[in-house]
Amino acid sequence: MSDIRKYESFYNKGREKKLTKVEEAFNRFLENRTFEWQSWLYGDPIGNLITVEVEDCPRFGETAYVEMDSARTALMIVDMQTNNCGTITKVITTIKNVLDCARKTDISVVYTREGHEPDLSDATFNKLLRSKIIGNGIGIGDVIPQNGGRLLIRGEPDWDIIPELYPQDGETVIDKAGKGAFITGEMNLILKSMGVTHIILCGILTDIGVHSILRDLNDYGYWVVLMKDGVGSSDLNNHLAAIKSIKMSGGIFGNVSDSQRVLSAMEYVKKCRRKE
Amino acid sequence: MSDIRKYESFYNKGREKKLTKVEEAFNRFLENRTFEWQSWLYGDPIGNLITVEVEDCPRFGETAYVEMDSARTALMIVDMQTNNCGTITKVITTIKNVLDCARKTDISVVYTREGHEPDLSDATFNKLLRSKIIGNGIGIGDVIPQNGGRLLIRGEPDWDIIPELYPQDGETVIDKAGKGAFITGEMNLILKSMGVTHIILCGILTDIGVHSILRDLNDYGYWVVLMKDGVGSSDLNNHLAAIKSIKMSGGIFGNVSDSQRVLSAMEYVKKCRRKE
Amino acid sequence: MSDIRKYESFYNKGREKKLTKVEEAFNRFLENRTFEWQSWLYGDPIGNLITVEVEDCPRFGETAYVEMDSARTALMIVDMQTNNCGTITKVITTIKNVLDCARKTDISVVYTREGHEPDLSDATFNKLLRSKIIGNGIGIGDVIPQNGGRLLIRGEPDWDIIPELYPQDGETVIDKAGKGAFITGEMNLILKSMGVTHIILCGILTDIGVHSILRDLNDYGYWVVLMKDGVGSSDLNNHLAAIKSIKMSGGIFGNVSDSQRVLSAMEYVKKCRRKE
Amino acid sequence: MSDIRKYESFYNKGREKKLTKVEEAFNRFLENRTFEWQSWLYGDPIGNLITVEVEDCPRFGETAYVEMDSARTALMIVDMQTNNCGTITKVITTIKNVLDCARKTDISVVYTREGHEPDLSDATFNKLLRSKIIGNGIGIGDVIPQNGGRLLIRGEPDWDIIPELYPQDGETVIDKAGKGAFITGEMNLILKSMGVTHIILCGILTDIGVHSILRDLNDYGYWVVLMKDGVGSSDLNNHLAAIKSIKMSGGIFGNVSDSQRVLSAMEYVKKCRRKE
Repeated sequence: MSDIRKYESFYNKGREKKLTKVEEAFNRFLENRTFEWQSWLYGDPIGNLITVEVEDCPRFGETAYVEMDSARTALMIVDMQTNNCGTITKVITTIKNVLDCARKTDISVVYTREGHEPDLSDATFNKLLRSKIIGNGIGIGDVIPQNGGRLLIRGEPDWDIIPELYPQDGETVIDKAGKGAFITGEMNLILKSMGVTHIILCGILTDIGVHSILRDLNDYGYWVVLMKDGVGSSDLNNHLAAIKSIKMSGGIFGNVSDSQRVLSAMEYVKKCRRKE
Repeated sequence: MSDIRKYESFYNKGREKKLTKVEEAFNRFLENRTFEWQSWLYGDPIGNLITVEVEDCPRFGETAYVEMDSARTALMIVDMQTNNCGTITKVITTIKNVLDCARKTDISVVYTREGHEPDLSDATFNKLLRSKIIGNGIGIGDVIPQNGGRLLIRGEPDWDIIPELYPQDGETVIDKAGKGAFITGEMNLILKSMGVTHIILCGILTDIGVHSILRDLNDYGYWVVLMKDGVGSSDLNNHLAAIKSIKMSGGIFGNVSDSQRVLSAMEYVKKCRRKE
Repeated sequence: MSDIRKYESFYNKGREKKLTKVEEAFNRFLENRTFEWQSWLYGDPIGNLITVEVEDCPRFGETAYVEMDSARTALMIVDMQTNNCGTITKVITTIKNVLDCARKTDISVVYTREGHEPDLSDATFNKLLRSKIIGNGIGIGDVIPQNGGRLLIRGEPDWDIIPELYPQDGETVIDKAGKGAFITGEMNLILKSMGVTHIILCGILTDIGVHSILRDLNDYGYWVVLMKDGVGSSDLNNHLAAIKSIKMSGGIFGNVSDSQRVLSAMEYVKKCRRKE
Repeated sequence: MSDIRKYESFYNKGREKKLTKVEEAFNRFLENRTFEWQSWLYGDPIGNLITVEVEDCPRFGETAYVEMDSARTALMIVDMQTNNCGTITKVITTIKNVLDCARKTDISVVYTREGHEPDLSDATFNKLLRSKIIGNGIGIGDVIPQNGGRLLIRGEPDWDIIPELYPQDGETVIDKAGKGAFITGEMNLILKSMGVTHIILCGILTDIGVHSILRDLNDYGYWVVLMKDGVGSSDLNNHLAAIKSIKMSGGIFGNVSDSQRVLSAMEYVKKCRRKE
């Protein structure tokens, strides 16, 4: 749109300063295949440095590692609400195992929960209409005959997080009105207030809420590791494709790992804390 | 999180007012399978009301229609930049046909373009690092040996929109630093300034930039119709899954159509304008 | 930052199209001193077109008029919460009069309410610390000795809107964690879902919450008319300066009117509705 | 809006964990009147810890100190553009002195610049209209007879930053379409990418662009110190009131200092760097 190149000299220093940091991290990655913690950007770690193994990175078939500060890492559990989890029970146990372990570390636990104000003020018209059509007349805000509650409304039955994974005192719940949580929820403000830099992501649906949140987090510079056996969808191919698309171009939306590898990293934090 | 149900009576009127509008639109949909223009929300149409046929809506195998005001509809072309379009040539012709037609109507044309400031101030560290790793040392901001330009930098060779689809005077380009364009670009402000309510979406990559933009638009209440033969990806299964996931739950991210059906709708506008 | 001027011809049409609309509105303003409703942008009015007289516009000492569609206008009442309203009782009666009148029209009523989640997840550290210091040890989230509630926490005593102006069933409340309501609340999504284009603004404090909200609304293209006798502050000069700064440069943050002039406009809507 | 108090026990731990940190910082403040660097939240400092004396804090007539990490502090210079600086020359020298000093430290320099795309796509209609009215027919986007450029358009004469304070290679410029820079610019993304936690703020106009930016930064948890002799406005009382309103309630929008005190703090960084 403009002849920016003739000004190139003007931008040299800012660019070169940043690229020097990238070059250093790149060379370290060549040595140890690790996305190392960046003290120049985040300060020294506050908790323990842990590394999570991730797959198909930078290329399919290859393995890499993401280093993170346990005290600035959040385990984020997306939309594990009663009305969502009907057919997807397998991931509950997986998430529960990781959650139990995280609760013994200084890793934070953050939940998201999709729902609307009782007066529907935060529900867009097309979302309401589509919901009513696909629900054969029972859409968002309408009474569900089976339980007498209203669909997808905050405070109503079936809207809350399932008992197996219910938040404990001290954990954070982010309510959101859409699939993402940056423009229809306070995720950005809350994560900033927490000082979080890295996210271990799980929940449902892989291709819907999980992916919308993943995309925003990644665009905003958060490091995200998705736990592939801790996410699920109603459509298997969509689920697999959503996982694969994260890995494209060296990790275009973050990285992919699984619960065993995440648990190994967390166990290390537990050991460190026992000694303290 | 709280006992909201006992306050239910308090919220009755707001909810019922909104649900009444939804009910009316739902009944109309049952009659004519059309998501009709909502004058109570947007005012009367300014241009011509047109209808675009969409597929697999509300259920797979079924057909529905989206009604829109041509003067408040935008054809949005995502990231058709030289450095992106290498392997995806098929969609260029498709988009070009629709673009040529749209230019003879009062439908707006909006482009997005991913890129960074020359000093990389708007590039997150993890994006820079991953880009350098997958590029074998040539990442965002580095000089590309083949053309001497810098990768993904505004104003550099290969960053701009391809000649075949190059914006004409009077069309709008939205620059963005991420995959989405709401939190790393000014899309929301610009669309609001334009008065746009409906978007016909195409471009690349289906599962990357196109989907990030689609998700934000949908969360924010814009009506989006994706033109399935006007989008493309480097991975065929990701492409197909990204299209399918839009259609889940009656259209969880919008609707899907194709260029023939979009062209038919646009031809109607052209006819109307000829008579004026 | 770049030699954009040589591309000037490229941008002619987009700019000229927009400037033509501005020119038309400008010429109309010269004739009738009215910021008229823009059907080309918003569609035709849905309710009744009303005009509110505003002062010191475009220059100090001059009078102008803002035309709005009653069905797309919101009366917005900022932060009239128990813990805020101690010393500012004068505005309550003024707002109550306007609120009573608005409730008989199709003008929407929207409230804002500052407060934090009970776990303080949405409270920034510096806000918490400053609050504790100025409160001599009783800050946000601490128990207030006088009433046993916790300061500025959602659901606690003194946090809610005062009884005199308490929202009625069918009115909208926007909770926010900061002074503004765009980046720490869902105002933008909610107003868009409502189809609102014009805001009549009142509440407290003039220079704090009211002004933060006013600034965001104006930056985003909403037309705002502040009701100067319906706002108040703990500091009279700050209050007066905050009102004056709105009027600078022909209305840099919107327009200023008062309750009498707003009531006159609303009475017209009431008359129209009686006839219907 | 809901009976949250009965769930109080649920929120105890999250709240108490946060309030414990606040209590510690509060007790330190009682000892040394300093808002200390928070390593638990930001990690250890990367550069040098410096302290800036601020006035009228927590109460008018009292003095306090803000501690910051030089490597995560930005000197932010707001809207010092040719078309803005006509009558406000006094602050130029003040800012220049501080800028010269900052350039010898590891403190970052960030500029903001208000302006619009040449096609006016990011200009709201009411801003355009009001500008044309107050400009007697010459508004944003129109040709300015005096210099042949277009008003407030990126790349045009008089729009850029004044020569005395012109950005050097390696400094960051944030373009914005409104008074604030969070919802009409990329400030949040850019500051996050830089790792900035504290801002020393100056520029013009005190009550317009400076205050809009200040408010967003503060709502988002950035620590802001405004340099009162480095800001200016066309209206003296608005200028003074805008400064005073920052100090209300113990620093409701941040803190206020002046160039002498900021220079003292920066000199300390310069000394440290000389030794390194």
